[in-house]
Amino acid sequence: MKKLKGSILALLAGLTLQAQHAEQRLQELGLVLPTLSQPIASYVHAVRSGNLIFLSGKGPLQANGQYITGQVGKDLTLEQGQAAARLTGLHQLAVLRAELGSLNRVKRVVKVLGMVNSEAGYRDHPKVINGFSELLIQVFGEQGRHARSAVGMCSLPMNMAVEVEMIVEVE
Amino acid sequence: MKKLKGSILALLAGLTLQAQHAEQRLQELGLVLPTLSQPIASYVHAVRSGNLIFLSGKGPLQANGQYITGQVGKDLTLEQGQAAARLTGLHQLAVLRAELGSLNRVKRVVKVLGMVNSEAGYRDHPKVINGFSELLIQVFGEQGRHARSAVGMCSLPMNMAVEVEMIVEVE
Amino acid sequence: MKKLKGSILALLAGLTLQAQHAEQRLQELGLVLPTLSQPIASYVHAVRSGNLIFLSGKGPLQANGQYITGQVGKDLTLEQGQAAARLTGLHQLAVLRAELGSLNRVKRVVKVLGMVNSEAGYRDHPKVINGFSELLIQVFGEQGRHARSAVGMCSLPMNMAVEVEMIVEVE
Repeated sequence: MKKLKGSILALLAGLTLQAQHAEQRLQELGLVLPTLSQPIASYVHAVRSGNLIFLSGKGPLQANGQYITGQVGKDLTLEQGQAAARLTGLHQLAVLRAELGSLNRVKRVVKVLGMVNSEAGYRDHPKVINGFSELLIQVFGEQGRHARSAVGMCSLPMNMAVEVEMIVEVE
Repeated sequence: MKKLKGSILALLAGLTLQAQHAEQRLQELGLVLPTLSQPIASYVHAVRSGNLIFLSGKGPLQANGQYITGQVGKDLTLEQGQAAARLTGLHQLAVLRAELGSLNRVKRVVKVLGMVNSEAGYRDHPKVINGFSELLIQVFGEQGRHARSAVGMCSLPMNMAVEVEMIVEVE
Repeated sequence: MKKLKGSILALLAGLTLQAQHAEQRLQELGLVLPTLSQPIASYVHAVRSGNLIFLSGKGPLQANGQYITGQVGKDLTLEQGQAAARLTGLHQLAVLRAELGSLNRVKRVVKVLGMVNSEAGYRDHPKVINGFSELLIQVFGEQGRHARSAVGMCSLPMNMAVEVEMIVEVE
């Protein structure tokens, strides 16, 4: 019984330690989260059910209020697409902080659906969405690794270059 | 202890009250749910796991047995697309009632993926899918607000104009 | 109390019985699961949260290391598309076995998102994805029946013909 109690305490300590890293890492990376935009339609940023938070799809909204737009591989280079995916990730982190008070309360990134605005025949969706996924791993470490699909859309709202939704597990 | 019991009873009463609204609101809105069609393939309308129900993608099947078809923004106007999204919502409500016996047992609409049949460069997916989302809010009130992605597909089954899947939390 | 214990034991026995079928059925069907490929990007094959496993999108990777590529209905026939979907299903079964040790631990296939590489106007996505769904039903029986969306993508990674992700419930 004593052993079990000890194990549980050790486990909780470990989780707290990992959790504390997220906000700290964000600072170390010099990242500042963007201000949350209002949803442009009849939905909310995120809904929690049990230990899971389902986040709405977001896009690469810039500080000037304009989205990065166009099709990756045609209007945008791969590198520009990756930057758009990373910017989208910062918005999703902002949603999570708003929902939870602190990114430290994220237990695990569970699932990401990365959608790339692209033409027929485009092949490099995984490389584009790595811009999003690698941000999560930088911020959350191993807890940031997730299941994922990265696919091509013929069009996205306001012609945004990427849209990414995700599911996160919290304590 | 007595206080806790009182809080729980008050909470349950509140949830029942909110829940009772859904079927009542449907009547007040004069909405009649369509007859459920059989899945056209090797799948089922919905699967429950724990408190979550995952609903299959549905489209705008009309009373005459034909889908509203075509690409929104090209073959259909925005308004026609919104009407298609709303009709799709009625089918998903019919699925939920069939699964649960009553819409009053829905605790929260969690997540919606709205897919719009559209050409490259189409921009108004959120406005189209609002036809679906606003129906849910009319019927479920605040519990109808959900996380959402609204995106563009180059093709959908039988050329249907929209396809929408969703996740719902139940008691 | 005794009755409850009896019911629980009966329930567990029933679940074990159903579960035992999956690996056995796979043998009876003469199916050999492919070797798991490494994810080609910053993600993992699957993440478990509670009783749900969220699987990354997979495609029809052949034994020669090449994907079945092209658009179904244009570069590939319906039958070739179905075979690609079935092959994708074998990869997802390999993921599940790697995660769980045995397919017998799958309780229910919950949700499938089947994405078909196809042109504007393509209509037969459900028939294509049936190649995936029917495999699951062959292997898991009634527990293999799932909620599903089957839709058209203008492009997929490396031009693969289909990509399918899924959510599975485990004991």
